[in-house]
Formats: sequence, structure tokens, C-alpha cells
Amino acid sequence: MHRTEVPFAKGHGAENDFLVLPDPDGRLDLPAAEVVRLCDRRAGIGADGVLRAVRCTATPEASAEEAEWFMDYRNADGSLGAMCGNGLRVMARYLVDTGLTPPGTLTIATRAGTRQVRVPHRSPDFQGEVTVGMGRPRLPGPDGIDVTVAERRWPALHVDMGNPHAVVFVDDLAHAGDLRIAPIVDPAGAYPHGVTVEFVIPCGPAHLALRVYERGVGETRACGTGACAAVAAALSWGRQSAAAHYTVDLPGGRLRIAVLADGAMELTGPAEILARGTVNLGRRAAA
Amino acid sequence: MHRTEVPFAKGHGAENDFLVLPDPDGRLDLPAAEVVRLCDRRAGIGADGVLRAVRCTATPEASAEEAEWFMDYRNADGSLGAMCGNGLRVMARYLVDTGLTPPGTLTIATRAGTRQVRVPHRSPDFQGEVTVGMGRPRLPGPDGIDVTVAERRWPALHVDMGNPHAVVFVDDLAHAGDLRIAPIVDPAGAYPHGVTVEFVIPCGPAHLALRVYERGVGETRACGTGACAAVAAALSWGRQSAAAHYTVDLPGGRLRIAVLADGAMELTGPAEILARGTVNLGRRAAA
Repeated sequence: MHRTEVPFAKGHGAENDFLVLPDPDGRLDLPAAEVVRLCDRRAGIGADGVLRAVRCTATPEASAEEAEWFMDYRNADGSLGAMCGNGLRVMARYLVDTGLTPPGTLTIATRAGTRQVRVPHRSPDFQGEVTVGMGRPRLPGPDGIDVTVAERRWPALHVDMGNPHAVVFVDDLAHAGDLRIAPIVDPAGAYPHGVTVEFVIPCGPAHLALRVYERGVGETRACGTGACAAVAAALSWGRQSAAAHYTVDLPGGRLRIAVLADGAMELTGPAEILARGTVNLGRRAAA
Repeated sequence: MHRTEVPFAKGHGAENDFLVLPDPDGRLDLPAAEVVRLCDRRAGIGADGVLRAVRCTATPEASAEEAEWFMDYRNADGSLGAMCGNGLRVMARYLVDTGLTPPGTLTIATRAGTRQVRVPHRSPDFQGEVTVGMGRPRLPGPDGIDVTVAERRWPALHVDMGNPHAVVFVDDLAHAGDLRIAPIVDPAGAYPHGVTVEFVIPCGPAHLALRVYERGVGETRACGTGACAAVAAALSWGRQSAAAHYTVDLPGGRLRIAVLADGAMELTGPAEILARGTVNLGRRAAA
């Protein structure tokens, strides 16, 4: 295999970081091993995931009636991701910054359906926050799921945000331990494709804090779907009262969640593109 | 402060990774906080350190008689570094790849003096390894230095490779523990500016393996001066016999060390530039 150079950008939302690979014509071959290499924080550029931005007309995974752009999201381990709230915000910021689409409200297709993203006009010194419609959380069960870290065990609530979450409430975020090691989720067969786990503490009225172990990634500094899942679980279990706006603090920053009249959630927070250039793809010959 | 975009490249040598900032005319203001931000692996691009490549004619830190280029090396915490073997190899690869200097033998100035670097001609699919002259290790003492991790304590040998190293021999590299936490070096005043610690095991004739805790960085996947310091300590303590060539295995790859007739060492290993582009400098306005 020979080496090719392709354009990339690196960005993050509350320090949940991504490589954006613009691929409007759907020509980029991106095997899992290449994603793993790109996301390697020392041998590659490093990121929690890769966002391939492809026009819907150029991919069989989306319909051009739905949206102009499709987010092909890959986790750092190379696996396909259905939805990623911070990823959507970063990809929308990229599309607007590079002039591929005008600011305002964008519709972007994902493997979990289309999502609306609002990207404000910006000045050179003001990026503004980006808001994404996350849809309605679904809490279909099953019950009886537990999460274990070291000697502690908590009952978990399953929340579907287009991707699966197991939410637990803890007394102290430090009890989540060293999340380089995956928490144990029982019963073992509950999530054959893995699950993202949120460790949550209520901080006050309409205010939560959490740490996240993301399926296919490990601990991340923030997770948009996880923040929404935490609010949904807190409401379901009476750990929060109903409100129109929630604040969610994550290790990498603060996200805000609005709950609309129909139960759908909107996620708002920073989204920044900080570098762009070209990156080598393809296996390198041994030295 | 407003934002500016400056050119950068990301590269690594045995997964010891760097951001190269080309600054031929010495115009780049690079405060410590900016280095910290650039090296942040989630909010920035991420690296073990920054290599500002500046012409000797454009910096008071080097003389133009000595060399054409000066390596202004900064650790990930923003502190100044005197020497960095893998950094020199990556910077030389960058200068050759971009045509700023022809392949062959380059002389590069550092805060620890000038170093010779050999960069071979390359083809698109073959990068070749890069060799850097590391100078002679100095073992001036002091004695009586110990390194402690958890319940284990080892006597350390001080080796000066232009930067300070404390080398210990262990029975198992796992005994170095979780090197996100700095090992304890006694007496506390021995290294007022900090020290890089090598945990070393002999693997066989002329063959060592090690892990490194780098001053100002944390655990890195490889360290060129550390590999040389480990060989020097092994020879001094009779853990290796004298030889012309040593192999040193690090978590990120293999480095080779030649010991010349005058005791000077040459370090050889992979050096790769994998991405290049522009990165935002300057504080961003709050969203």
C-alpha cells in the first residue's frame, strides 16, 4: 500500500476531540486499522473519534432528500458509531468554517437518523456555541443491569439516545475509578455490541456532573449523548425535577441541555476547530 | 489577544511525538501557556513536546557559525528543554522533507551544544532511519540517589546527557507502576530542576528494555537521551559488557545505539512526519 495525503481538521467540543476528514465525493477508503492509527495519540494525530464528512449524494448510507451531509462517525477503536452529539457539533462547525455550508440551521444525516444543528455566525474572535437536536431519549429497559467498578456495584438505567447508555448514580465521581479499565456491566449479554457508561452525581437543581466511559473509546472528557442520557435517567429515577434547561458538567467542560415540550433534547456547548492540514494515510514502509 | 494561524507538523520517533513549528525568522512568540495548550492531547493537537525550528541567524541562543538551525525544545509543561534526541531526529526529518535543508549530515544547535544528524535520502515509500550524535555521557555523581515507586526503592545512577537522568535497574518494568504519577527521587534537593527517570531491565547481550518518566512531560513512549543514559549506566554498573552496538526497546519502538571509540554515542531509529498544516495560536474568546 502506498501513502496518500488527505485533508483533515482537528477539533473538539468540551475536549471531546475529533479528526474531521472531508470526503465530499465519498472516495476515501477508511478501514478500521486506519482509524485506529489516526486516533493513536502518539503514533498518529490522536482523537476520540473520526468524522468523515461525506455528501449524502455520495454515500449509500443516507438519502439526499434527508440532508446534504452525512456524518460517518468512527470510534477510536475503528468501530462504526451511530450518533455522537459533540461530533455533530464539531462537524457542523467545520462545514461552516470552511464554507462548505452557510451558518444557520443545518440538517446532518447520521446512522441514527437526521439531526438539526444550529451554528451561529461568528467573528474572528468569537466562535459562539453550537446546538444540536438530540431527539427523544428512549428508556425501554431492560431492568436488572448493574455496573461494577472495583468493590462498588450500582444498578444502571438503560437509555437509548440512538446509541446505548447505562447510567448509574454514584456518591462521588472518584468512585468510577481508573477508567482506562472498562467498567463491568452485568449481565454479560446485555450489550453484545458494548455500551457507554455514565457515572453521575446530582449537583443541585437542574445540574448534574458526570464521567463517561465511551464504548469503543475509553474515558472521554465529554460525551453529548451521555449528557442527555444522564438527564433522562435523573428524571426517570426522580434524581432531578422536570425543568426546561439543565447544566451538565464534564471533565472537559460544560454542556447545556434544553428539554423541549415533546421531550426531545437540544445539546449546546463549545465546538472549535483548532488545526487543519493534510495527514498521511496508508501503511508506512518499515524504516 | 487575537488568534493567529501558524504552520505546524506532527511527527514522532518511536512514538515519542512532537509538534514542529517552523519559525525560520524567529518571529514566533511562544509563551509556556501556549506550549501547554498545543501539547494538550484533547483541547490541543497533543504531543510530548514542541520543537521550534529557528535559523541560528535569527536567535540569540545560538551562533550562526555553529549551525544553520537551532532546536528550541519545549517540554509539554512549557518548560525549556536543553536536548532531546528523538526531537532532533524528528526536526531533522522535517527540515529535509520540506526542502529547508538537503539530506545528508546536518548540524543542529541545541541548548546543550551542537549535534550532528544524518538523514538519508528517501523514496515515497521508504523513510529510512535517522541518526543523531548524542555526545559522551557524563557520570559525575552524585551518589546516594534513590528512586521510589510504591513500596519499591532502588539506588539510582546519575547520568548527564546534556539533560539529567536518574537510572535504576528493576526486575520487572511493571514495577515502575503507573507513571502518570511522578516517581519519588531522594534526596529531595538532588534535582532542583527535576530529572528524567529510566527504569531498565537487561534483556541479553547488548540489549536493554526500559520505561521512562520524562521531566516536564510524564511517561513517554520513548526517550533518546534516556536510552543512551541507560546504556551508560549499564556499562558503569557492569550490567552490560562493552560493545559497539546496543539495542534498546521502549514502549513505542526500538532504538539502536552505537558507542564510538571516543565514548560518544549515536542514536538511530525511525523518525516520521505524519501530518502538517496550520494551527491556531492565541487565546480563544470564551464561547
